[in-house]
Amino acid sequence: MAGPKNQLVTLLTDFGSRDPYVAAMKGVILSAAPHAQIVDIAHDVPAHGVTAASFILAQVVPCFPPETLHVVVVDPGVGTDRRILAARFGGQALLFPDNGVITHLAGVLPLEEIYAVRNSQFVPPPGQVSMTFHGRDIFAPVAGHILNGLDLRLLGPQPDTYKLLDLPQPRQDGGLIVGQVIYIDGFGNLVSNISAEMIVAQFGAFDRVTAQCGGRDVGQLQGTYAFVAAGEALALINSMRLVEVAVNQGRACDVFGAGVGSEVRIVQRATAASRGGTR
Amino acid sequence: MAGPKNQLVTLLTDFGSRDPYVAAMKGVILSAAPHAQIVDIAHDVPAHGVTAASFILAQVVPCFPPETLHVVVVDPGVGTDRRILAARFGGQALLFPDNGVITHLAGVLPLEEIYAVRNSQFVPPPGQVSMTFHGRDIFAPVAGHILNGLDLRLLGPQPDTYKLLDLPQPRQDGGLIVGQVIYIDGFGNLVSNISAEMIVAQFGAFDRVTAQCGGRDVGQLQGTYAFVAAGEALALINSMRLVEVAVNQGRACDVFGAGVGSEVRIVQRATAASRGGTR
Amino acid sequence: MAGPKNQLVTLLTDFGSRDPYVAAMKGVILSAAPHAQIVDIAHDVPAHGVTAASFILAQVVPCFPPETLHVVVVDPGVGTDRRILAARFGGQALLFPDNGVITHLAGVLPLEEIYAVRNSQFVPPPGQVSMTFHGRDIFAPVAGHILNGLDLRLLGPQPDTYKLLDLPQPRQDGGLIVGQVIYIDGFGNLVSNISAEMIVAQFGAFDRVTAQCGGRDVGQLQGTYAFVAAGEALALINSMRLVEVAVNQGRACDVFGAGVGSEVRIVQRATAASRGGTR
Repeated sequence: MAGPKNQLVTLLTDFGSRDPYVAAMKGVILSAAPHAQIVDIAHDVPAHGVTAASFILAQVVPCFPPETLHVVVVDPGVGTDRRILAARFGGQALLFPDNGVITHLAGVLPLEEIYAVRNSQFVPPPGQVSMTFHGRDIFAPVAGHILNGLDLRLLGPQPDTYKLLDLPQPRQDGGLIVGQVIYIDGFGNLVSNISAEMIVAQFGAFDRVTAQCGGRDVGQLQGTYAFVAAGEALALINSMRLVEVAVNQGRACDVFGAGVGSEVRIVQRATAASRGGTR
Repeated sequence: MAGPKNQLVTLLTDFGSRDPYVAAMKGVILSAAPHAQIVDIAHDVPAHGVTAASFILAQVVPCFPPETLHVVVVDPGVGTDRRILAARFGGQALLFPDNGVITHLAGVLPLEEIYAVRNSQFVPPPGQVSMTFHGRDIFAPVAGHILNGLDLRLLGPQPDTYKLLDLPQPRQDGGLIVGQVIYIDGFGNLVSNISAEMIVAQFGAFDRVTAQCGGRDVGQLQGTYAFVAAGEALALINSMRLVEVAVNQGRACDVFGAGVGSEVRIVQRATAASRGGTR
Repeated sequence: MAGPKNQLVTLLTDFGSRDPYVAAMKGVILSAAPHAQIVDIAHDVPAHGVTAASFILAQVVPCFPPETLHVVVVDPGVGTDRRILAARFGGQALLFPDNGVITHLAGVLPLEEIYAVRNSQFVPPPGQVSMTFHGRDIFAPVAGHILNGLDLRLLGPQPDTYKLLDLPQPRQDGGLIVGQVIYIDGFGNLVSNISAEMIVAQFGAFDRVTAQCGGRDVGQLQGTYAFVAAGEALALINSMRLVEVAVNQGRACDVFGAGVGSEVRIVQRATAASRGGTR
């Protein structure tokens, strides 16, 4: 007899770490699936920050072993008629509210199967469920079933559609690439939506371009932070293969006064020949 | 021979997450009980926040599997003659300073047994113990013994009494229920001490009442946050079965300028008939 | 055949808890070593805070069971030619950037073996590694190998030297000990570099001295915080056997306006006899 497929479960919420909410979910999961191994992705996603959670998920999920279950409860529509979905992307199982939180991940891993979680055999009925804490009352017990080996397709029917966020896309504008800051990390680094691949496709090589942020030149792409002096600004291709504007050992978001949505540009670098044009 | 009963252990402290304190406790527990599975409840309880910790404990402990051990080190009296107690409430084991931190839990789960932790066979002697970090030097090694199967009653004698906090109680005042904000969560939601059961007992049904906070009407009890527009205030029965004043996708504590102790009222709703009194 | 020696692994980083970075590392470790048990030491060390991380490490590592692997990624030099080292101190395995982060630990546990991590059999080649996130791309996979039983000495050659921080040392100055605040914890307590042993060596006993911080007398060494009234300042020998200046249930760093580097003095206590000198 086959044992449970999943035992590893991650949690991504906006519950913070100072309230009873995350631990209540963990208690319910461990009550249902005592051998579960729970890993926190993050709980201090900005409150109701579906877009930030979507970005984080895409960076983290591909790092986990196949058959890991990822439970996402960034869910401003809790208690409304928004659906809860269960899906498999590239061998990773996910349980999440249908609010677009899997948008970035769907661009990274192939969707293999998806179901609306509604089978009353596994989902507690409304009378036994609070309307404001589905994390504890629905997500956690359903996660317990999945960790105990439940086939996702038994959770409910395939939905016709599921929600995806309408994300800003970088555009080519003359010889430039014009993108936006889409994520600011805890170091204050400005992560843009301009990928390494776009730069190679348009300019052929990284050393032919220079970056601008908020109208300010931040120079050629560097290899890493410490290639410039402490306190100096730079741009680089980060570990997500995206253009990032940073300040070595400083906070770029403060130095540039930039936020999510601020413009980042990649432009053709002036060569020595073109600079010395009078010759 | 029976193996250990408890292997799951939770930690609730006010140590924060940036210092060595929590990890030192975990190291000591895992040194004594290598198969322990440690779950964090919270470590960023307000410093010396016995009342907040008591509230959190009551929300979380009932979610865990029977025989889980819960170790609480919110302990402003560390190193004084305050006792350390071990108890069983509703099948859950607890190890905690005798400062009232189990007050809310004692209202939720029945006390089954309680002991003063003092048996020198299991408690390191004063000379081997710092006076300021009993979490590492007493709670953690004693937790190790319990996780290895030690019967709680071997830890020491039953105490004559144990401390309970004197909590504010909601009162009926004419036709009203007048309660207080007792907890503010990370979303800024104002959790009061008025329970769903009190409302039903006094008014018969939820749809006959309206809520007030800080002298301001917040309307009928809603099902969930998103039943009002983003930025609008509301009241609801939350997942703890308590009246909560919130702002959909906002921070009620800021909008209402409210804190722990602020007044929350439940009043009879003006009906169409009573409003249209001139008829 | 012997199984893996280490299964317990701790993480100490300055990545914070709201970004994908820590969870990405955990995913990679668990992909390589599914039975690893991961314990967080801290992730909100001040950004690029090598000295604070060094201090924390020395407090925590000795609490863990032998053969625990401790992975430290406080690494402002990521992607430069700074080395990654693997070492064993007092039976504990460590993987860390060669930036001095093991300085305090090296004063507490004996160095048993140390290697530069560079064997291409176990370290992914530069082309497969981001230059800005060695935590995910080098530290985590190498940790996986160690958790699967790899002998540290196979990771690379012994280095001629390794970096140690130049830490401020307390000095004897006439009859005084003059030290510095070296760490401020989350409670606002001021931890100095003056050890209990120094006081005993110079003055013979704790009750013969009084402490000063920022030119202000904080009195005799107390046993614990609650030996003075709430809000009152005090000094004590803390759980690290260091002189600590604190405010009972308050924040000494604010009360004293003190920071890392602020002066702490231990002086001979005026005795009754010396005070009453006219007799």
